[in-house]
Amino acid sequence: MCTIFLWSHCLGILCLFSSLSYIPTVMASSAAFSTYALHGSKLASRTMWANTFNEHTYSCSILQLKQSICGKPSSLSVEIPFELQPNGRLVSKNRVICSAFEVENTPSVMVGNKFQLEDVIEAQQFDRETLNAIFEVAREMELVEKNTPGSQLLKGYLMATLFYEPSTRTRLSFESAMKRLGGEVLTTENAREFSSAAKGETLEDTIRTVEGYSDIIVMRHFESGAARRAATTASIPIINAGDGPGQHPTQALLDVYTIEREIGKLDGIKVGLVGDLAYGRTVRSLAHLLAKYHDVKIYFVSPDVVRMKNDIKDYLTSMGIEWEESADLMDVASKCDVIYQTRIQRERFGERIDLYEEARGKYIVNQDVFNVLQKHAVVMHPLPRLDEITVDVDKDPRAAYFRQAKNGLYIRMALLKLLLLGW
Amino acid sequence: MCTIFLWSHCLGILCLFSSLSYIPTVMASSAAFSTYALHGSKLASRTMWANTFNEHTYSCSILQLKQSICGKPSSLSVEIPFELQPNGRLVSKNRVICSAFEVENTPSVMVGNKFQLEDVIEAQQFDRETLNAIFEVAREMELVEKNTPGSQLLKGYLMATLFYEPSTRTRLSFESAMKRLGGEVLTTENAREFSSAAKGETLEDTIRTVEGYSDIIVMRHFESGAARRAATTASIPIINAGDGPGQHPTQALLDVYTIEREIGKLDGIKVGLVGDLAYGRTVRSLAHLLAKYHDVKIYFVSPDVVRMKNDIKDYLTSMGIEWEESADLMDVASKCDVIYQTRIQRERFGERIDLYEEARGKYIVNQDVFNVLQKHAVVMHPLPRLDEITVDVDKDPRAAYFRQAKNGLYIRMALLKLLLLGW
Amino acid sequence: MCTIFLWSHCLGILCLFSSLSYIPTVMASSAAFSTYALHGSKLASRTMWANTFNEHTYSCSILQLKQSICGKPSSLSVEIPFELQPNGRLVSKNRVICSAFEVENTPSVMVGNKFQLEDVIEAQQFDRETLNAIFEVAREMELVEKNTPGSQLLKGYLMATLFYEPSTRTRLSFESAMKRLGGEVLTTENAREFSSAAKGETLEDTIRTVEGYSDIIVMRHFESGAARRAATTASIPIINAGDGPGQHPTQALLDVYTIEREIGKLDGIKVGLVGDLAYGRTVRSLAHLLAKYHDVKIYFVSPDVVRMKNDIKDYLTSMGIEWEESADLMDVASKCDVIYQTRIQRERFGERIDLYEEARGKYIVNQDVFNVLQKHAVVMHPLPRLDEITVDVDKDPRAAYFRQAKNGLYIRMALLKLLLLGW
Repeated sequence: MCTIFLWSHCLGILCLFSSLSYIPTVMASSAAFSTYALHGSKLASRTMWANTFNEHTYSCSILQLKQSICGKPSSLSVEIPFELQPNGRLVSKNRVICSAFEVENTPSVMVGNKFQLEDVIEAQQFDRETLNAIFEVAREMELVEKNTPGSQLLKGYLMATLFYEPSTRTRLSFESAMKRLGGEVLTTENAREFSSAAKGETLEDTIRTVEGYSDIIVMRHFESGAARRAATTASIPIINAGDGPGQHPTQALLDVYTIEREIGKLDGIKVGLVGDLAYGRTVRSLAHLLAKYHDVKIYFVSPDVVRMKNDIKDYLTSMGIEWEESADLMDVASKCDVIYQTRIQRERFGERIDLYEEARGKYIVNQDVFNVLQKHAVVMHPLPRLDEITVDVDKDPRAAYFRQAKNGLYIRMALLKLLLLGW
Repeated sequence: MCTIFLWSHCLGILCLFSSLSYIPTVMASSAAFSTYALHGSKLASRTMWANTFNEHTYSCSILQLKQSICGKPSSLSVEIPFELQPNGRLVSKNRVICSAFEVENTPSVMVGNKFQLEDVIEAQQFDRETLNAIFEVAREMELVEKNTPGSQLLKGYLMATLFYEPSTRTRLSFESAMKRLGGEVLTTENAREFSSAAKGETLEDTIRTVEGYSDIIVMRHFESGAARRAATTASIPIINAGDGPGQHPTQALLDVYTIEREIGKLDGIKVGLVGDLAYGRTVRSLAHLLAKYHDVKIYFVSPDVVRMKNDIKDYLTSMGIEWEESADLMDVASKCDVIYQTRIQRERFGERIDLYEEARGKYIVNQDVFNVLQKHAVVMHPLPRLDEITVDVDKDPRAAYFRQAKNGLYIRMALLKLLLLGW
Repeated sequence: MCTIFLWSHCLGILCLFSSLSYIPTVMASSAAFSTYALHGSKLASRTMWANTFNEHTYSCSILQLKQSICGKPSSLSVEIPFELQPNGRLVSKNRVICSAFEVENTPSVMVGNKFQLEDVIEAQQFDRETLNAIFEVAREMELVEKNTPGSQLLKGYLMATLFYEPSTRTRLSFESAMKRLGGEVLTTENAREFSSAAKGETLEDTIRTVEGYSDIIVMRHFESGAARRAATTASIPIINAGDGPGQHPTQALLDVYTIEREIGKLDGIKVGLVGDLAYGRTVRSLAHLLAKYHDVKIYFVSPDVVRMKNDIKDYLTSMGIEWEESADLMDVASKCDVIYQTRIQRERFGERIDLYEEARGKYIVNQDVFNVLQKHAVVMHPLPRLDEITVDVDKDPRAAYFRQAKNGLYIRMALLKLLLLGW
């Protein structure tokens, strides 16, 4: 069981209410209500209260909605306090109390036959159907042109980028996505140093303040799990733009989207993951998501010191995904549809610079690798790159990494659209 | 006596002029003129000159306006230089010289029966009537919905946030306010380090440059009095978003607005100010503003080392406001309409960490305090908080601090609207 | 010979294509094509490839355009890959391959009788006619009013400010310019520290990522030549907002524009360049641009240690521009139309603080200098200033430096308009 509160869109609802002076009309708005109510919910701890218990509340009415949510009967109660004004008019106080309604625990809430996105916290939250649906929206986003109605989808919406560690690339991508859809952005490039965090404020308090200023929060944090804590607190959607060694789900989505765009399919593909497989957040998430597709074969090509960890290998095996480790990049490159190269991160090697230098030079994607690559195959990289892909191959049409970066824009446009407007 | 210059909106005026080729029409526009002219004025040192004394000014006309400003006769002279173009057309040079006109010194300029806001520099500048009028506009701002005409009130206007010290919370609140009204924002998060200030430029020079790029400046500075210096220089409105140990007037306004919103009145209320009363900028400003209302009673509850200073006590006494100091938070909480808790600032204690720890733990607002609180009462806090309010009371409807933060948005929307568009 | 690729506006073109299912219509759009195609081109290394060589490309058509570019015959070939969808429809894959077409090397591409701007990299790229044409547009920009069609010229366009070293003044000026025309901005105030650059990413890779998120990039960098490298890589327009000791072309343009606005002409003027002439980027660029006009006379007034270098002197001589060095600021001031004062930069003197102090105090523009200045003359300064112009002369109408800063806004509006929309 989970408890759903509907605070997140109370502002939207209140706009409806604020001109009402009698209850029947409120009842009549229940249809609109249900749409709003399901947005940004699902977490039991999202309790928020309005101040309605004071002596100036002269009138209050309980509105009971019986609704079918995801095919389950559920109930919702809302108290709408009214105030008797000196002139005798009965006016809504613009505060509502939202009681909980109960539905059975489902992974997400369905609207029509689509899953309703509430937050984007980790790659694992998406099943195959949701991924496909998101990719469909991303495709539409590729076609959004300047000065068309599509480019104004999110007009009036405000996105806050709350970055506790810098990531210009990710931030610009999100901000571009929001602005390409007509939305506006509040930027915090260095929340850790600049914000109240430095004075000891908890993340939860920061979120409860920032949610008052914006409609959606894109957060990057240095601590694993921070995005989930934020989502638990927030009444508006949260997108995890990376939380330390934890998750970076929009990168994982754009990677899968790029494979689908470039290769044309996800079932039956062969993917070579190359480089830092031990610490590389992106390859771990990608392996996780690929496991949702059929007949996928994954090759791991990495220096010994940064081999893929057992948790992912075990998971793939449990999902029936074939994988093997290889030390022969040329062989793997000749077989795969996708070679996904990653950067060896120096900071993982501490003082063992010798190990780093050895690992770093071991698997370079260069013209030789491209020479054995199949005609339809592509090379991907999450960027930034150092020299693990040589620049002379950039002009080869199979070098997909800059198109991959661009796809991040479309995926983020799609997510913003889905989180703020629904399907 | 004060001298009023009308440079600030000359751009607006010039737009009127630029299509004119004969004087009578200019004369006819004097009505529009007076509206523009009063905006952003009042400070005698706001002298600005245009370059009109060069050899290419072939024609120039003096426009004399006799007007009644605030019921006082006054005069205004404007020189409009014209240029004879090679094709024989007489074209305005888009530069005007604005001479001063004299009116008697009034606290602000009245338009209709409302005071015209020019800058927001300190809490004391507002009298009771102005406060009420601002709160009325803030109430309207609470109802501004996405994609309605109200949400486009400030379309085309540019606000520059010039922050010489970081304050993400305040900055985001202002930027959200501007964008909620359709305006645009130029951000400087760290003006001290990044700007020409590092090269030794004076604040005045910076302001004269930035005012060329924007329509209003929101400034935070580390020096007391900086906002006033900026306003003296600027021809566009300045909002003080905190100047060091000095003023933070929009915080004071949102505090009073929150009391009025939560309690329903300001006359006759009992307010307990708790925590750091010696250095807390917010409680000092709040006490100052509360003195404008009738039958207010203020309780001071603080550790000995950070007691309220005599200047405020004397001021309250002089204004006929009852106040008393108390060491019994439970007793005060049971009597008050509002408990205003503040953070004890560690940096005030230097090396006396022992004193800090003692002061910090002394008055905590927790469930026990809420248990004695009246049903209609509320607890406020300027945020960020550490542990001076325990998180377990957050869900109590009388915990008003996050609503208080949100009210900052409405107050700032109201101020931006009033400074840029008037009443 | 130079090779032109047309990738930069392929997105615009693709929008045209994406709804096409047969070739003749594509041919018919060739006129539109030529307009788009010339934008942001000219550099041979701008090769970009799309991924079209995979097994999912079922159909492909070659479109040959024969066109007259700058009066020279040229050819252009575009491959438009089509995909046969399961439903039998033939749909463009939204990727095109752009082959090169050859034209003779011209300084810029002409559209009608105007030079097409592609990037703004250095002051020297502008000839007299282009300067005049830009100034004409800047004049129009001075008249752009809020909420008129002119203020929405760049609606839907995104400008990224990629600043590898901070320059708040320049950044705000560009961002204001973009927003005054209805465009949107992605800001990076400290790209050096925050971006992938810190991880070792090349400038080229950064540019290829950021160009995916924006329509134009304004870049400031600490290395001379960085802007040119960016322009060579980018498929969208680049504006150099200063690259280390190298160029700052928009400052040079606004300086010349200010002279033209203030004095009314550029031919036949006398200009005194004062202060740090050895290292001052602005005076060197200004001298360079003034050499394009007739009968100009330049006076150099500087402390011995920062005298104008021989390269500029030789260049002026070669262009037939009269110049002389003088140690008598009063004499020069009495003769000139423009006195251009600059700041002596302390950082140039290392440990020789004594030399700095001597140099710094030597030529101050104060009331005495203004007393000998002609009535029509003006004093300019690139700002920020320290005490090389005393503040008491600010109110003199001949003090043009703040108007000069404001002119930066109009010049940048003009450049953004020209680069994004053309003439």
